[in-house]
Amino acid sequence: MDGSSFMDMALTEAEAAGGRGEVPVGAIVVNSASGQVIARAGNRVEETRDPTAHAEMLAIRAAVTELVGNPLGRALSGHDLYVTLEPCPMCAQAIAFAHIGRLYYGAGDPKGGGVEHGPRIFAQRSCHHRPDIYPGIGEKRAGALLRDFFEALR
Amino acid sequence: MDGSSFMDMALTEAEAAGGRGEVPVGAIVVNSASGQVIARAGNRVEETRDPTAHAEMLAIRAAVTELVGNPLGRALSGHDLYVTLEPCPMCAQAIAFAHIGRLYYGAGDPKGGGVEHGPRIFAQRSCHHRPDIYPGIGEKRAGALLRDFFEALR
Repeated sequence: MDGSSFMDMALTEAEAAGGRGEVPVGAIVVNSASGQVIARAGNRVEETRDPTAHAEMLAIRAAVTELVGNPLGRALSGHDLYVTLEPCPMCAQAIAFAHIGRLYYGAGDPKGGGVEHGPRIFAQRSCHHRPDIYPGIGEKRAGALLRDFFEALR
Repeated sequence: MDGSSFMDMALTEAEAAGGRGEVPVGAIVVNSASGQVIARAGNRVEETRDPTAHAEMLAIRAAVTELVGNPLGRALSGHDLYVTLEPCPMCAQAIAFAHIGRLYYGAGDPKGGGVEHGPRIFAQRSCHHRPDIYPGIGEKRAGALLRDFFEALR
């Protein structure tokens, strides 16, 4: 599978989240070398009433559980994260702590993003790990999903 | 109980975390009106190998589970968080998302903090909820705990 197939999987998670009444965001953790998908998740903030239950946090926590004793090093070293929306500051900092190697995301989020917007977490001097960042993959579909969702709420 | 007693409870959680080989940080969630302690937690990053398992995140998640359907509004509206160390950017953003009313913390963290240092999460325009912030309560004991811990590692 290539990068756009992984983003398709993240988009499928996003659509499923939307179907549950969640803001439609999905995320996938992939082993960089083997291409094995380690974890996948969609937003569960409404269902759990837990404001930290963003797709990226759930995917990271599931992947960590899967990889206890990751031979590659710290938490998620050697793994990539695909997410349909630019991560917020909370998720961006979690991605740094987890030592994710590459971050692929779909749509930018001028209002709530923390990578290319707002606090730009990875550009902070206090940020000790910065993934390689690939924005814009699957952007159109991810953006359309979010637009449709918020329009339906009006 | 007053604020310093709650910080004492957070410090007890921090000491217990240190005893488990964790960075000694502890957190407590309290109902602002009744003074009821809703959740308490210490760091569990080493034990769980989950880099998101900071004391604040665990306390927030436990409190949310306790308060599903919080009649006061969003997630942790009407609740305060006591934590022994200045929250990192991930935890600060989670505190904003949870609508914590007041944030009390002990020692400032020039290297990893996200409140008065680094990205100063609550000062970002994209941050939609800012708690009232009370730094420096129990600062000496919290700082001494951390210093002793890191000195013992050398």
